[in-house]
Amino acid sequence: MGPAATVLFYHLVTNHTLAQRDKDHLNIIITSRAEIPDRTDFILGKSADDPLPMMLADAQMLERAGVGVIAVPCNTAQFFWDRLTAGISVPILNIVDETANHAARRGFHRAALLGTEGTVKGELYKRALAEYDIECRTPDPEGQALVNSIIYDYVKAGVPGGEVLFSKVAEMMLADGCDSIILGCTELPLASVPDPRIIDSLEVLAYRSIVEAGGTPKGFSPEFMSAYEK
Amino acid sequence: MGPAATVLFYHLVTNHTLAQRDKDHLNIIITSRAEIPDRTDFILGKSADDPLPMMLADAQMLERAGVGVIAVPCNTAQFFWDRLTAGISVPILNIVDETANHAARRGFHRAALLGTEGTVKGELYKRALAEYDIECRTPDPEGQALVNSIIYDYVKAGVPGGEVLFSKVAEMMLADGCDSIILGCTELPLASVPDPRIIDSLEVLAYRSIVEAGGTPKGFSPEFMSAYEK
Repeated sequence: MGPAATVLFYHLVTNHTLAQRDKDHLNIIITSRAEIPDRTDFILGKSADDPLPMMLADAQMLERAGVGVIAVPCNTAQFFWDRLTAGISVPILNIVDETANHAARRGFHRAALLGTEGTVKGELYKRALAEYDIECRTPDPEGQALVNSIIYDYVKAGVPGGEVLFSKVAEMMLADGCDSIILGCTELPLASVPDPRIIDSLEVLAYRSIVEAGGTPKGFSPEFMSAYEK
Repeated sequence: MGPAATVLFYHLVTNHTLAQRDKDHLNIIITSRAEIPDRTDFILGKSADDPLPMMLADAQMLERAGVGVIAVPCNTAQFFWDRLTAGISVPILNIVDETANHAARRGFHRAALLGTEGTVKGELYKRALAEYDIECRTPDPEGQALVNSIIYDYVKAGVPGGEVLFSKVAEMMLADGCDSIILGCTELPLASVPDPRIIDSLEVLAYRSIVEAGGTPKGFSPEFMSAYEK
């Protein structure tokens, strides 16, 4: 839901849709309301500004405009999914469930969850992964501090170089016995390094969005596609 | 208005807005209706499918959603600007006039216009540039055929490598005495090569959109910014 993550999501959906001409692409409406209050600050009780009313107003605007399916490229916002879904009649893809399902299809058993403190403490990933008997490990306080810095001090601030911190956290989690790393914040792909053990929730959401909207996906990596070819 | 051009436009606006955190960014709504009939085919009389009704419906949707200014990242669509503007009360930035104004501020006198046949034959650039005493030259039929190929066979078809044709056309126009090259189709920056004599209409529209929406531009090249610092 951060602007840079939304740009990347739109790029992924467009770039990964099989198309020879404009009209082969999907019809898309994007609302990027930068003023929506910080989701993590509200979940952790650091702020009383509830992001739900603005998110719901935007979802209702999309519904009125006639969209068939909604994707919310923000893991922390998933905390509000039940209430958002209850307020409209258009289906909203669940980024957490889709990512857990992808991890299971890839055969992983012990995933490291990298995300905001709101996502980690909300425990949605822990529950979703448990459905597939996948253990969900999260960084220790020092590791989480690094993840917070990547998201807020680098990506959201438009500062390059978060990859250094990312590699450090990824190594910590792999050394802890994790067989995979979930990018459980849509800002993280903007500061990550290539590794076949990485599961990018934004990429999963882009794939599922293309399929749900009736497009034909193209150009995803063989590792990624192996989840859907079994 | 092609999906790839819209993704690039959104990237430019986000990347060039000075922001330390989400809420420093602009609130943006994008409608990318891929099914809008081809603008050039209609202008040239090759097709009876008028793109105006869908464009107008989308503009009215944006107006109802409360936007303060509209940017249409498509030069060919500028042909419909008068009728689009007449149908809503929100101002629509004029990509052709803004680009001509930019060329004048940069001190150019003889510009090569690269665009779709709809844009070239519509002569909007010729008239807008004449207001600033800038001569508007267009490619000969062989050169225009190369431009058409870059736009339709490469960029819109998602095929890389259009830069080869682009360099060829650019050299033809510079050899013809042009002191600048206007990328008068928003797909062209996706197949162009860096040159300080190039004026990218999509970049101009992104700059003007940020300013009009109340944001602070950052990161544009010194050549580009020289137009606004006089």
